[in-house]
Amino acid sequence: MRAEILTIGDEILIGQITNTNSVWIAQELNLLGIKVVHMSSVSDDKEAIIKAFDDAATRAEFVFITGGLGPTKDDITKKTFAEYFNTILEIDERVLNTVKGFFERRNRELTEINRQQALVPKGCIVIENKNGTAPGMWMKKGNTVFISMPGVPYEMKSMMSELILPKIKSENKLPHIYHKTVLTQGLGESFLAEKIEKWEDALAENNIKLAYLPQPGIVRLRLSTFGENSEVLKSVIENEIEKLRKIIPEYIYGYENYGEDQPGLEKIVSELLRERKLRVSLAESCTGGYIASLFTSLAGSSDIFNGSIVPYQNQIKHELLHVDAALFETVGAVSKECVIQMANETRKKFHTDYAIATSGIAGPAGGTAEKPVGTVWVAVASPEKTIALKFLFGDNRQRNIQMTANAALNMLRKIILKQE
Amino acid sequence: MRAEILTIGDEILIGQITNTNSVWIAQELNLLGIKVVHMSSVSDDKEAIIKAFDDAATRAEFVFITGGLGPTKDDITKKTFAEYFNTILEIDERVLNTVKGFFERRNRELTEINRQQALVPKGCIVIENKNGTAPGMWMKKGNTVFISMPGVPYEMKSMMSELILPKIKSENKLPHIYHKTVLTQGLGESFLAEKIEKWEDALAENNIKLAYLPQPGIVRLRLSTFGENSEVLKSVIENEIEKLRKIIPEYIYGYENYGEDQPGLEKIVSELLRERKLRVSLAESCTGGYIASLFTSLAGSSDIFNGSIVPYQNQIKHELLHVDAALFETVGAVSKECVIQMANETRKKFHTDYAIATSGIAGPAGGTAEKPVGTVWVAVASPEKTIALKFLFGDNRQRNIQMTANAALNMLRKIILKQE
Repeated sequence: MRAEILTIGDEILIGQITNTNSVWIAQELNLLGIKVVHMSSVSDDKEAIIKAFDDAATRAEFVFITGGLGPTKDDITKKTFAEYFNTILEIDERVLNTVKGFFERRNRELTEINRQQALVPKGCIVIENKNGTAPGMWMKKGNTVFISMPGVPYEMKSMMSELILPKIKSENKLPHIYHKTVLTQGLGESFLAEKIEKWEDALAENNIKLAYLPQPGIVRLRLSTFGENSEVLKSVIENEIEKLRKIIPEYIYGYENYGEDQPGLEKIVSELLRERKLRVSLAESCTGGYIASLFTSLAGSSDIFNGSIVPYQNQIKHELLHVDAALFETVGAVSKECVIQMANETRKKFHTDYAIATSGIAGPAGGTAEKPVGTVWVAVASPEKTIALKFLFGDNRQRNIQMTANAALNMLRKIILKQE
Repeated sequence: MRAEILTIGDEILIGQITNTNSVWIAQELNLLGIKVVHMSSVSDDKEAIIKAFDDAATRAEFVFITGGLGPTKDDITKKTFAEYFNTILEIDERVLNTVKGFFERRNRELTEINRQQALVPKGCIVIENKNGTAPGMWMKKGNTVFISMPGVPYEMKSMMSELILPKIKSENKLPHIYHKTVLTQGLGESFLAEKIEKWEDALAENNIKLAYLPQPGIVRLRLSTFGENSEVLKSVIENEIEKLRKIIPEYIYGYENYGEDQPGLEKIVSELLRERKLRVSLAESCTGGYIASLFTSLAGSSDIFNGSIVPYQNQIKHELLHVDAALFETVGAVSKECVIQMANETRKKFHTDYAIATSGIAGPAGGTAEKPVGTVWVAVASPEKTIALKFLFGDNRQRNIQMTANAALNMLRKIILKQE
């Protein structure tokens, strides 16, 4: 099964945005065992689009098209789509109802431009857009299925994951593929590679491919294999993961099964807290609200999260969290003493079982010889005790914030599981 | 002058790497007034590459090719290049010396595979690679110049900037291009399109192209034009922007010049505060730390940001921010009264000039008939007064948080500028 990915829109061609949609679609298709043979980006121009459709039909059974479906004038994909299939555009009543509902819920008037969002080529299979007003369209010509989707990433992704990929899977016999990703925190890519070198070398004998997928503070190890029997594939992979667990038990914080979203550490920690009916609060100096925003990005977070204080000045650390003011003169705010006081007071103030406190030099300025940029202290207070650890990350502000968050969340995870 | 960008390599097609080379090349060409009409990515496969060359020749005068020049076996670009131009590969002595020197400096033996790096198609113009062993190649067929470069970004970029672009500039008369992007907040794409319809229609007369680039709560309007005289182009665009400013003054929060990064609202607000030596603090219920993390993602944010409280339970709103507890029973926490009390107390507690407070139903659960998911109250307290506004956003939790943040930041921006 071969696929092609086509992106429509001038913003790609002038280099204004990076084509992340194509990367995501390619990854998803690859996981299904569908081979991507070509990617292209064309302008919002009828002739260019038709030529790209014609070319794609010679190469692939599936053409995934993103972009050019918005209500504004620069978007001509839909008209061109109808023309390519020798058909007309007509209002789809279900889409029209969705669009109407979308505007009603917002108490806003439905304009003629919005109504036109419900136009689709006659004869196409309409793919529902649960997150926006532009529907997806599925049409076949010869042996090739053309699937047109909006360019807005979260609209496209939910359409693909929930509707299009399941439809393709149910209608086609695809090879069995099995993936599982081991989530690790606390070891950089090259150190991890050294630790697991022998295990990695032996994977090839079992026809298993390994990919290192690094993120700040985290390395995801994706194992994948394919073959005839999915049960066999699964047991081969699980067997290797069991071996890996014995080599690096302290760095593994979770797993990601195929088709599931990657569970962030905040999600794994939230679930541990929820199962145990426990709660957490935060005092975030160097992470500046980032950990709070991770927790609260999850639906239902108020079940486990009571709140946070971002004390971005020493005076605030003293007044709101009762950090001893003398301490700023002696050991400074980036110190074990400071994060321990912050964590303990936060745990009390927010009436929670646990509290995390962070304080560090995120950079790019503020470093000294003794405490260079990237120096971070993290404390976790629990009903039994408060522990604090020092880290030395790198030069990049955003990465330092993310690495601190992941280190802090993994400390909390281990304390909850009493593995610290 | 039209160009096409062609990327060769399986790593792009399986989604393993994001195609940042194409973005960079597109930006550079665009600055020169060369129009990129097509981008594509193909596999390390002879037929696919030849077909891509043939297609490109019908569309463009320049084809920029990256990837497939490494010494390993899957790299067949160079052989295919020679075949396409009906020529043979021969050793280029200058390149061979470069390759030899490269290995000598590293005290490594020159293998036969490395020697082959010096092979180039007979008759091509060799482009020196100052940072690696694979040379660039420039060859013309019919009216189209094909330029093949290594896929390693820093090798490709230095080759382009130092040798290829200067050569193209010196040999061709290129048009000038001018872009500017207007940043708007508070109007959805279709409503904005209606409000500026007449203005937009008139742009075509001045040969200006308009693109709508939406983000949660934000629409960026990109104007672009090209011609002979860069001063004229600039004044044409600035003139149209001046007209637009009169139509939607309250929605424009900034501008993005071509080649600059897009300034987020948090950056624009931070700069306004810094210039005036003013400070802000936050009480983030429904945004849960997200606005704090936006401010603190910027280097030097402690100059303008004193901190935040995320009061994620009513009890915490009462205890830490002195919100009248009776109010939760009467109007509820998602109310004008609640955000005003939160903002006023936060402004005092954190000793700041301004304070933002948010409270809303981010979803997906927690909505009622009276206050559906997406209902949000935002207050901004200033030395003179405290204002509060109600918003009704959508169903998606993450988008609701982002839209609230952008709405709140724009309220603060207007209060600072006394435009509210």
